[in-house]
Amino acid sequence: MRFVVIGGDAAGMSAASRAKRNMPELEVTVFEQSGDVSYSACGMPYNIADPRRKIDELVVREARVFRDKQGIDLRTGHRVDVIDPDRGQVRGRSSEGGEFVEPFDRLLVATGASPIVPDLPGMDLEGVMCLKSLQDGRRIKAFLETHTVKRAVIIGMGYIALEMCEAFVERGIQVEMVKPRPIFLPWLHPDLAAMVRGEVEERGAVLHTGCGISGIEEAGAGLRVICDGPALEADIVLVAVGVKPNSDLAAEAGLELGPSRAVAVDRTLRTSHDTIYSAGDCADAFHVVTGDRVWIPLALRANRAGWAVADNVTGRPTEVRGVVGTAVFKVFDMQVARTGLTPEEASRAGFEPAEVIIKGRSRAHAHPGNTTLGVRLVGDRKSGRLLGAQMVGREGAAHRINAPAVALHAGMLVEEFAQCDLAYAPPFGPVWDPMLTAANQLLKAM
Amino acid sequence: MRFVVIGGDAAGMSAASRAKRNMPELEVTVFEQSGDVSYSACGMPYNIADPRRKIDELVVREARVFRDKQGIDLRTGHRVDVIDPDRGQVRGRSSEGGEFVEPFDRLLVATGASPIVPDLPGMDLEGVMCLKSLQDGRRIKAFLETHTVKRAVIIGMGYIALEMCEAFVERGIQVEMVKPRPIFLPWLHPDLAAMVRGEVEERGAVLHTGCGISGIEEAGAGLRVICDGPALEADIVLVAVGVKPNSDLAAEAGLELGPSRAVAVDRTLRTSHDTIYSAGDCADAFHVVTGDRVWIPLALRANRAGWAVADNVTGRPTEVRGVVGTAVFKVFDMQVARTGLTPEEASRAGFEPAEVIIKGRSRAHAHPGNTTLGVRLVGDRKSGRLLGAQMVGREGAAHRINAPAVALHAGMLVEEFAQCDLAYAPPFGPVWDPMLTAANQLLKAM
Repeated sequence: MRFVVIGGDAAGMSAASRAKRNMPELEVTVFEQSGDVSYSACGMPYNIADPRRKIDELVVREARVFRDKQGIDLRTGHRVDVIDPDRGQVRGRSSEGGEFVEPFDRLLVATGASPIVPDLPGMDLEGVMCLKSLQDGRRIKAFLETHTVKRAVIIGMGYIALEMCEAFVERGIQVEMVKPRPIFLPWLHPDLAAMVRGEVEERGAVLHTGCGISGIEEAGAGLRVICDGPALEADIVLVAVGVKPNSDLAAEAGLELGPSRAVAVDRTLRTSHDTIYSAGDCADAFHVVTGDRVWIPLALRANRAGWAVADNVTGRPTEVRGVVGTAVFKVFDMQVARTGLTPEEASRAGFEPAEVIIKGRSRAHAHPGNTTLGVRLVGDRKSGRLLGAQMVGREGAAHRINAPAVALHAGMLVEEFAQCDLAYAPPFGPVWDPMLTAANQLLKAM
Repeated sequence: MRFVVIGGDAAGMSAASRAKRNMPELEVTVFEQSGDVSYSACGMPYNIADPRRKIDELVVREARVFRDKQGIDLRTGHRVDVIDPDRGQVRGRSSEGGEFVEPFDRLLVATGASPIVPDLPGMDLEGVMCLKSLQDGRRIKAFLETHTVKRAVIIGMGYIALEMCEAFVERGIQVEMVKPRPIFLPWLHPDLAAMVRGEVEERGAVLHTGCGISGIEEAGAGLRVICDGPALEADIVLVAVGVKPNSDLAAEAGLELGPSRAVAVDRTLRTSHDTIYSAGDCADAFHVVTGDRVWIPLALRANRAGWAVADNVTGRPTEVRGVVGTAVFKVFDMQVARTGLTPEEASRAGFEPAEVIIKGRSRAHAHPGNTTLGVRLVGDRKSGRLLGAQMVGREGAAHRINAPAVALHAGMLVEEFAQCDLAYAPPFGPVWDPMLTAANQLLKAM
């Protein structure tokens, strides 16, 4: 049997490796249009921050390991242009110009996502960068090494924009950030967003929210971002306004798309065509809290979905249970974490949300090193269910979020969560963990 | 209505305060034999570590606040000697020598726990200390200030012993620890216990396991702990071999006792006498995983039980859902956390345990500052349920333990836990959190 994979990153290589492990006689072919496979994309901002580190340190497993040790026919520099579901074949072109046709019995579409590039003049100027692929990271790093970069402008204020803000500041670069919409981290509770914004500004970055951007132009030896606000001059401009699923190939093959134009898959990761699977940043998923399809492109679910595809392809029927939207990032010393629904998302999903926001402490009463831990909890007035959580703080937010994440998977009531026997010791929190204090207050608000 | 509370620490004062808030007309009287109420006992080792801090910083709320602001008749220096359930009264004696008799409609026994003092010669010598009450902390701190203390011997190797080891070392004191039983932290997986032991020894403390102790004697200006092993000379000896519930008063009143001679209570915290409640370190609880009564004296459940008693006394029927045995402590830079059952506890409770132990990483591949995170997971072969977890590491163990703790409350299967959408970002863990890696391996082992 022939198993063909389009895309050699997290989902694609997870699936290829596991399928080959499950069934050594399976013929596994992976087409990857770039030269890179299996790297830690999320690690790029931290790597870029440190001039001593090589970007290739982020490669988890080299292409030759997949080929020589695992027996995977991995073809980098091969771009698939057409999926032909009826003939069971893919067609494309290699970077050397040769055309190829490859038949499949089972196909995995793991084409990932791409950065959104606004349709504005100047996006193609030298020094205007995006960050998604390892090649993007290489370009940014090379640019920083070969140019004198003292000022950076970042268009966008999402988590990649903020991680890159930290990376630039670490390298001694003055950063200005700009976005058209007026609210900083709009999905966060305003009090929590203010904590994050305060941290970023305290480290010297300047934030311009609510500034419409009309283009980028050359200005002397550098660049100028033209916007409603002040003149933003820079030696490098990073465009980080979000990502979109790479689903055109799938759509052209007639595969159904779901929310945000991601490839629609069922719980076995099967698309609308029964021999074709999709996984990773190009595919959608079920949200455990709402039951709806969602598109939340994150690394863990990509790896997990890749494994599940491998199991299904090799005759071990597997379903993925879906996501709850757990995500975390760090900007400077501030940890920002979320799981589940915001009140707005909860309303849209038909719940009657109640919410609380508290500012708790990261350590016990009178324990040195105490900092503020902000916690938002969201519950449903009708059913009593816990619906979501957000946390921001200098310590303990990132790992704490996993407790409400598990509670969401279990469909716990707020009342049940409030009764959980959580860990306590003075260096790690108050007797009543801020999550429990928030849950107790949410019970009253409901 | 008269509500009388015996014991003014976590459970007692939580109950008194909340009862008064719930029902301002309630007459609330608290008898506390010492002069201290409402302090963070768990914070004492950290306070003792720092000569600049005053022990009274650990007082969360002063007695006069309870009296003047909350209207609680709080009588410190009052020891209750007799509970008379039939007459509905308690009798005792104040530190000034006066006898008192107080009638009650509802009584809370919150008499706490006491350190176990081995019945050996020399336990009453000057310089031999226990650590349980704030008064104990005061004595240790005063001793360290008024004596030249260069060497400490700690009898016991539990979490208080280890926290005090760190405190002494922080103060430049050479520490030796000794215990009769051969295994260091016997409830931890041996590989995890070795990580903790390595940390303690690396910081210069000397551990003598398997050394029977026959007494303490004076030796020159100091003390000598007489044991099977080497001569242990010290300027101070800390006895930290465990605690026992203060349940004699309850037992003499005819109240039923449960495991470890703790006062037996139902889910409403009621004892075997229907007007008498018990909560905190003197009372037992239900274990959510086994359904059995257990005695696990920890601060969170004491506070929670105190609240529940207040609610029940003031006409708001409340049940506590029980504990899963979540606990955490830190020794030097090592975090040690547990929740649920060990394989041995699981076998005794009638499960068929399977377990895995893994050494994962605290951060992502190639992320600087990576350290080892040891994870043990225990599951039941028969039902597939998750039964317990243990974690040891320099970062992330303390807060990570809350995820399996919530899973235990929810009765999750290992398979369900393995599918949870947990947080990922490179500074906080690998894509597959070590907990998920352990869960995936446990599934295979089951």
